[in-house]
Amino acid sequence: MTPPDAASPHHLLLGSCDYPEHVPRDCWETYARRQRELGLTFVRLAEFAWSRLEPRPGEFDWAWLDEAVEAYHREGLRVVLCTPTATPPAWLIRTHPEILPVDEEGRVREFGSRRHYDFASPVYREHSRRITRAMAERYGQHPAVVGWQTDNEFACHGTGRSYGGASAAAFPGWLRERYGTLDALNEAWGNVFWSMEYGDWGQIKPPNLTVTEANPAHILDFSRFASDQIASFQREQVDLLRELSPGRFVTHNFMIFESGFDHYEVARGLDFATWDNYPTGMLEFFAQGIVGEEDRNHFARTGHPDLVGWNHDVYRGLLRGAGRLGREGEGTPNGFWVMEQQCGQVNWAPFNPLPADGAVALWTAQAWAHGADVVSYFRWRAATMAQEVLHSGLLRHDETPDRGYAEVAALNQARFPLGEVPARVALLHDYESLWLLGAQPHSASLSYWAQTVTYYRALRSLGVDVDILHPDADLGGYAVVVAPAITLATEERAVRWATAVEGGARLVCGPRTGFRTPSGQAWAQGQPGPLAELLGVRLLQFDSLRSGLTQKVAGPEGDFQAHAWAESYRLAGAEATHTYVGGPQGGLPAVTRQGRATVIGAHSDALIRAVLRDVLAEAGVETVDLPDGVRLSRRAGVTLVQNWNPEAVTWEGRTLAPVSFEVVEESTPAGDDPRPARLG
Amino acid sequence: MTPPDAASPHHLLLGSCDYPEHVPRDCWETYARRQRELGLTFVRLAEFAWSRLEPRPGEFDWAWLDEAVEAYHREGLRVVLCTPTATPPAWLIRTHPEILPVDEEGRVREFGSRRHYDFASPVYREHSRRITRAMAERYGQHPAVVGWQTDNEFACHGTGRSYGGASAAAFPGWLRERYGTLDALNEAWGNVFWSMEYGDWGQIKPPNLTVTEANPAHILDFSRFASDQIASFQREQVDLLRELSPGRFVTHNFMIFESGFDHYEVARGLDFATWDNYPTGMLEFFAQGIVGEEDRNHFARTGHPDLVGWNHDVYRGLLRGAGRLGREGEGTPNGFWVMEQQCGQVNWAPFNPLPADGAVALWTAQAWAHGADVVSYFRWRAATMAQEVLHSGLLRHDETPDRGYAEVAALNQARFPLGEVPARVALLHDYESLWLLGAQPHSASLSYWAQTVTYYRALRSLGVDVDILHPDADLGGYAVVVAPAITLATEERAVRWATAVEGGARLVCGPRTGFRTPSGQAWAQGQPGPLAELLGVRLLQFDSLRSGLTQKVAGPEGDFQAHAWAESYRLAGAEATHTYVGGPQGGLPAVTRQGRATVIGAHSDALIRAVLRDVLAEAGVETVDLPDGVRLSRRAGVTLVQNWNPEAVTWEGRTLAPVSFEVVEESTPAGDDPRPARLG
Amino acid sequence: MTPPDAASPHHLLLGSCDYPEHVPRDCWETYARRQRELGLTFVRLAEFAWSRLEPRPGEFDWAWLDEAVEAYHREGLRVVLCTPTATPPAWLIRTHPEILPVDEEGRVREFGSRRHYDFASPVYREHSRRITRAMAERYGQHPAVVGWQTDNEFACHGTGRSYGGASAAAFPGWLRERYGTLDALNEAWGNVFWSMEYGDWGQIKPPNLTVTEANPAHILDFSRFASDQIASFQREQVDLLRELSPGRFVTHNFMIFESGFDHYEVARGLDFATWDNYPTGMLEFFAQGIVGEEDRNHFARTGHPDLVGWNHDVYRGLLRGAGRLGREGEGTPNGFWVMEQQCGQVNWAPFNPLPADGAVALWTAQAWAHGADVVSYFRWRAATMAQEVLHSGLLRHDETPDRGYAEVAALNQARFPLGEVPARVALLHDYESLWLLGAQPHSASLSYWAQTVTYYRALRSLGVDVDILHPDADLGGYAVVVAPAITLATEERAVRWATAVEGGARLVCGPRTGFRTPSGQAWAQGQPGPLAELLGVRLLQFDSLRSGLTQKVAGPEGDFQAHAWAESYRLAGAEATHTYVGGPQGGLPAVTRQGRATVIGAHSDALIRAVLRDVLAEAGVETVDLPDGVRLSRRAGVTLVQNWNPEAVTWEGRTLAPVSFEVVEESTPAGDDPRPARLG
Repeated sequence: MTPPDAASPHHLLLGSCDYPEHVPRDCWETYARRQRELGLTFVRLAEFAWSRLEPRPGEFDWAWLDEAVEAYHREGLRVVLCTPTATPPAWLIRTHPEILPVDEEGRVREFGSRRHYDFASPVYREHSRRITRAMAERYGQHPAVVGWQTDNEFACHGTGRSYGGASAAAFPGWLRERYGTLDALNEAWGNVFWSMEYGDWGQIKPPNLTVTEANPAHILDFSRFASDQIASFQREQVDLLRELSPGRFVTHNFMIFESGFDHYEVARGLDFATWDNYPTGMLEFFAQGIVGEEDRNHFARTGHPDLVGWNHDVYRGLLRGAGRLGREGEGTPNGFWVMEQQCGQVNWAPFNPLPADGAVALWTAQAWAHGADVVSYFRWRAATMAQEVLHSGLLRHDETPDRGYAEVAALNQARFPLGEVPARVALLHDYESLWLLGAQPHSASLSYWAQTVTYYRALRSLGVDVDILHPDADLGGYAVVVAPAITLATEERAVRWATAVEGGARLVCGPRTGFRTPSGQAWAQGQPGPLAELLGVRLLQFDSLRSGLTQKVAGPEGDFQAHAWAESYRLAGAEATHTYVGGPQGGLPAVTRQGRATVIGAHSDALIRAVLRDVLAEAGVETVDLPDGVRLSRRAGVTLVQNWNPEAVTWEGRTLAPVSFEVVEESTPAGDDPRPARLG
Repeated sequence: MTPPDAASPHHLLLGSCDYPEHVPRDCWETYARRQRELGLTFVRLAEFAWSRLEPRPGEFDWAWLDEAVEAYHREGLRVVLCTPTATPPAWLIRTHPEILPVDEEGRVREFGSRRHYDFASPVYREHSRRITRAMAERYGQHPAVVGWQTDNEFACHGTGRSYGGASAAAFPGWLRERYGTLDALNEAWGNVFWSMEYGDWGQIKPPNLTVTEANPAHILDFSRFASDQIASFQREQVDLLRELSPGRFVTHNFMIFESGFDHYEVARGLDFATWDNYPTGMLEFFAQGIVGEEDRNHFARTGHPDLVGWNHDVYRGLLRGAGRLGREGEGTPNGFWVMEQQCGQVNWAPFNPLPADGAVALWTAQAWAHGADVVSYFRWRAATMAQEVLHSGLLRHDETPDRGYAEVAALNQARFPLGEVPARVALLHDYESLWLLGAQPHSASLSYWAQTVTYYRALRSLGVDVDILHPDADLGGYAVVVAPAITLATEERAVRWATAVEGGARLVCGPRTGFRTPSGQAWAQGQPGPLAELLGVRLLQFDSLRSGLTQKVAGPEGDFQAHAWAESYRLAGAEATHTYVGGPQGGLPAVTRQGRATVIGAHSDALIRAVLRDVLAEAGVETVDLPDGVRLSRRAGVTLVQNWNPEAVTWEGRTLAPVSFEVVEESTPAGDDPRPARLG
Repeated sequence: MTPPDAASPHHLLLGSCDYPEHVPRDCWETYARRQRELGLTFVRLAEFAWSRLEPRPGEFDWAWLDEAVEAYHREGLRVVLCTPTATPPAWLIRTHPEILPVDEEGRVREFGSRRHYDFASPVYREHSRRITRAMAERYGQHPAVVGWQTDNEFACHGTGRSYGGASAAAFPGWLRERYGTLDALNEAWGNVFWSMEYGDWGQIKPPNLTVTEANPAHILDFSRFASDQIASFQREQVDLLRELSPGRFVTHNFMIFESGFDHYEVARGLDFATWDNYPTGMLEFFAQGIVGEEDRNHFARTGHPDLVGWNHDVYRGLLRGAGRLGREGEGTPNGFWVMEQQCGQVNWAPFNPLPADGAVALWTAQAWAHGADVVSYFRWRAATMAQEVLHSGLLRHDETPDRGYAEVAALNQARFPLGEVPARVALLHDYESLWLLGAQPHSASLSYWAQTVTYYRALRSLGVDVDILHPDADLGGYAVVVAPAITLATEERAVRWATAVEGGARLVCGPRTGFRTPSGQAWAQGQPGPLAELLGVRLLQFDSLRSGLTQKVAGPEGDFQAHAWAESYRLAGAEATHTYVGGPQGGLPAVTRQGRATVIGAHSDALIRAVLRDVLAEAGVETVDLPDGVRLSRRAGVTLVQNWNPEAVTWEGRTLAPVSFEVVEESTPAGDDPRPARLG
């Protein structure tokens, strides 16, 4: 794919999201010029503009967008266009109300904001293709247009699943496709339990409004079904864009900690992933239960480095997680964009504190260091109308530069060379395991996210770079593989992991690993199912610790206090490195080791960190004990030293200013050739 | 309007709410006699009595009410009758289920309690007129009947808005009336955002069940629409009562901290306002987020003086807030009634503590001091049946006097002369601003009520009397005008305020003042929109502080800690009197001053109090530093000194008993002629 | 009724719940053998097996169950069969969706878990009879089958009431049956209040979705109606089982702290009661507001002894509470079973901690000591599929013995002789009072359960055995009768209690006793209504204390602090033994005494314990001050000393190990002849 202007810069580029339709036409030229002057390269347009592009059914109005694109083009900006399908207009919804989604409570969700559609709706699919084709025909080969974003933030606002209408109608057919016979489905779901066996495909509905909890197998397959609807909805758009807009990239802007679909599946066929990075909103809105209240106060004005880093690393690895689907070797590089980068306060969390001075620059630098090739700020000018009137932009309502503007202007983009993130540690992340732990958490205080991010944070606190991958991805070349919460195990997955361990990798698994079969039952041979040989243990007990309870664990490093979760094992080849002290599991193994495979059964930040530090040391991965809020990230032979704390920190002789970063050239060159940015 | 008996007492009068239909007929005469003996003048009757007045469609049974009215009349009591429309009977609802309202979740709310109707229902309107006409024809000229109450507590239990049925059907027509064209509506609402533009009036629905938050402009107009339905529903009753019951007053009993409609609009056409005063229930049920948990414990048995005082002052000023509607000079005096006064425990809050000894007398005295001409206790005898069986009355279930009875008996009504409340400070209160801050709070801990009452409480803690007025009211004659949270600004409002300032008034604005246009957008020139010239500032930032964050402010009085909100300004004529220290706004103006106009950008009780004290001093309004829970209120040349604390307080040499008051004649006569009570 | 094998052991027997349909056939024989080897006598089968017994309408498949029953029979196990009506299969629900229940929010609750039916559905009744008849015809006289369980856990998951469909249709007819005329109903409900009077039976609907709270009389009668539906639903099954399976027992497995129906009514016609005992789940899921957070941590791994004991004692007394229904002298003995006994972690609470070592044995011993004849563990092997995959069994998923197994194996069943529980104290428990206090709690922190269990706990902490009985049960022979929260009083009940007191019993009543009439109104003569003469008091005030408020009470033992509730009395024959100090009720009686009748008006654990201790002493009931978590229970001349604490306790010279029990032969034989277990 050749970018239209053949430019291949070797450093980070910047952009912004702009909405010419929100302002008078006489602003457009000025805005384009000011964007160029600020050093921006990209502008994203037309994201929610359907009602302006097609004000009445079949009547298109291209004039304004033609003019807007030209205005930006004249200033040399490269345009990313969006399919506007996140916002079907009123005329379409009122003509076809069956497009509207149905929520888990059985309520039709209404027109009047955004994302008001059911991905499975055949009517909506037709209109989605129609508007995509129309836009692609009009702008697909425009010299300013370098790429496309499909829709916007799939599944945001809980819209990943519709529990009625078109989705409910399509679900049985999807199941028939998957299982062939009802006997197979009843067996896979264990429907004999509570007489839930089906005798006809038409008897099956979504798993909502059941009297008490639904069958987790039912929930798992409905989650897969819904995810597939999103994937095929997008695929229809991608196919049209490939046909009509050759040489342009196609991407989607994914969400923060979104659970509504399998991102690895939905990302298939895209050129690279992008995501929308709102560090303070993330901390206020998404972080409950993942980080504690103390951290939420401490990092209120920057967000938490590891929550942000987690998302960067997920999206960098998204298109490498395709191994299980036969896509190994497709060679998709690991670049990504931040399509929307917070540059002032957000408006959508319960509290929306102002970012600290320096935060916008720090976020940009971190994004680069984690592999972003482009960072695009949301939004150019704060909206003066409607739902996001309290959200900031680079410009204020009155068009004066807001606080982020100066930080962007001060960035020296050339200091951020492109190139590989040299991670030697892979952390495995799996949406099916996430759904299963969500369906039956067993502990109100330990979600999939909380369990998984705890391991990620421990690695980051040790100064280690991490690739986040699908559990069936190619693990070749990694020194350490961490599987914090891969509760679904398959025979194939067990073989794959064993191969990695045989190849020299060290494997660290968290609790609940391998508890479930692919259909969401428990393995009849007990956890860890087909991983038993590799790990050398069998589950004895799992203990869900209420907030007031802890469980002591003793090991060579001393004592630890587990909270939330503690499970123990019968040794079947492994040895115990840490043991429970007191309580119902007193004397039983808490952490085990068989060869290069370690299992950690107790949830304890300190224990996890201690075990990982030892394993990393053995694997020859250098670690460093970083102070809270100080983080290192490496890319292209350069190390980004970050201080996310609101106060200065002295570390290894350096004084790091509050909310700041330093770009440090490594004394030994990493040997990575900077690679061209993905400019489309 | 001449009261039937031409009596014009010059002091507070008392009454009670009685329900003869709840007790055997042989009680009526006794109750009337005992009421007279207790010193009561008024009795309110027939409030929810529709099913007894019209047991079957069109079949009226007047006999019992005739007899009851006569019983009270014989004892000289003056009767206030109610239209019984808060409780449409079963036969009406089952014949016309379309009368039932639809809640925000889309559920039809059912018969079986009260307020089960949609104000916009044409069918219900017809029956409301029919029963009003029938009652007015029967009793409109009865010598005992001195006035009417319409319905009961409009909007209570969230019934101010119906999100379906008749209201949903009427909303588009109301919008067409307001905007004329869809282009105008789309422009006013900013519907280009998220492609929410409408192409047909029929496409527009209420703003509920949207996938994520609805457009605040949509919410604002729906709130206005719903408020208008209440106003016109009542107007139909008022018109009939004026026609058929000449010489009687018409009022409505409004609620505590009710947000469901614009009280200034709905009060139009009434003779005076009344409200229902439940100080302990208010503290338990309505005060969360307005006062802290410590205050809720401390004042659990009295309620908080300033929450109660706020409501008194709102209702005293309700009919003076009509300036913007061309009603200036109509000369409605500022008297009001407490139509329902708690006289023992309530039953409707999560906790319902007993009032302290002395509380009933204190509440009565405070009501008078804030301008009440009549205080009417709810209810005469505790109900032995149905929903309010745990609510107290002056008599217990067994007809013995309950705790409030003795306090009422001990009141010397002649000690409470009528006359003006000599307020020199006006505080501006606006339901449209309330709706907008409610639609997009940006901070989970600072509601409109919390922000506004903080200013009111500061004034009260300085011993200052306050008139609460609509922001477009005539501000002539006030020394100080306080606008705590008037976030909606219009050009006309800006002119009006400027005129007041030019006329010598000092103006103090809180944060968020002038952020919004009349349609709920942000002013494109930025906050404070058209007030910029008057205030001499432009908004720089607003900071929503989560609970664990504070922001330091420095000023001439020392340092303050802002919480919940902090905004800063670019000076455009004003000077900074207080400045932020540290944090993202460090060094920026927190409080500004241009001539007589002050803007306070930081939310801090102490800061607000300090700034107001200075402004009041400059304006020549005397202040006094009152201990917590001690309050002063003045009327007709008399000062009521109140101690709301459960313990004795020594203040200025006096020892104030727990939960007590003293009526102090001012040494310098205030010169107010006591004016006659509004007796109808 | 003669058990099939004529064995009448004189000690506790054990069993388990097994689900052969969940495992391959080749497991059955092994499981049966292992059960016998473990010392189990009973096995419960076919609980939710409808879809396997009747896979398609009218097509029965008995082969698998025939084979399973034979497998257990061959090992000598006695089989309890279940009617599988808790889980109507998909083919039935999709053919007759009108069977589905409607929840309080008006939503139809869906197929996909269990209990998805409306008890009033005539269609479902027909199918319930049909499957019951088919099973009873097939197995009713099988030599292995000793008894039947109807359905499973009536009302679990809030399914006791359906607010639409068949229940809504049947409710008016039930009311007509009860009241005869609408005038009578309107009078009984007090419908004149808020014009709620009905003019046609068809106007009456369930009390849900009303705009604000519904009439408590409406709620009370709907609760009675719903309870009656459950009773008659079950009666239809019982009648068929009696006819077709003579000589077998019929029971039902009741729930923990279930409020959804009148257990005394629903138990009528059963041979004995059984219940499902999950001590840790009970503490996590049901105990909020009944015991404090500190206790919930302390007893997290055992459950709270008195919460468990409460349920045992309720179910032991269930079939003795029939006095008011003319069933006195039916002579139903007081044995019961624990049909499902937790033997490892549960899966259905927010947190699900592992039981302590020793807990399974302790629970079993306590069950016996409170009168259980059989304890049956849930379940034999942990399910590998569906909703309960995280719930433990005696065997793990991998068929190895789980933690409870060894404790069961170690039990010496012969140490637990059968016989009477020698309670001299009766505590009165009433579902109608529960419903009324639930409908109008007046205090968010004092539910019926919290108030009642506080008295029970005080008795238990004094080492006293307690019979829990219906307030209209025969009270003859009890030394002390405690009525903690019998808020509904009838004339007949007053006579019955007076008779008991005249007969020598001491009566202790808690607050709110006798406030309500049988239709849920307040007695017009005031609390305690018809009990006034017996108690010698009239209510003055009740005070609902918010969490931050307490009220001092002084008495001969010293001072106490009441919380949540404090009521005072006018003495009308009684004397005050304790008096309020300070506060609005300062100086008024808090505890009164007239002869042998005591009323406690203040809620205070210490006060209640002190008063009960005195009354017990006077009555000659021996008390002992037990440490927290130490409990005594007596049966058949033996005392079970229990330590529920996670640490050892020294008491009266003994050191009690953590979570342990001792069976102590009383020095003086109790003289009870051990009676045969109820084996069916």
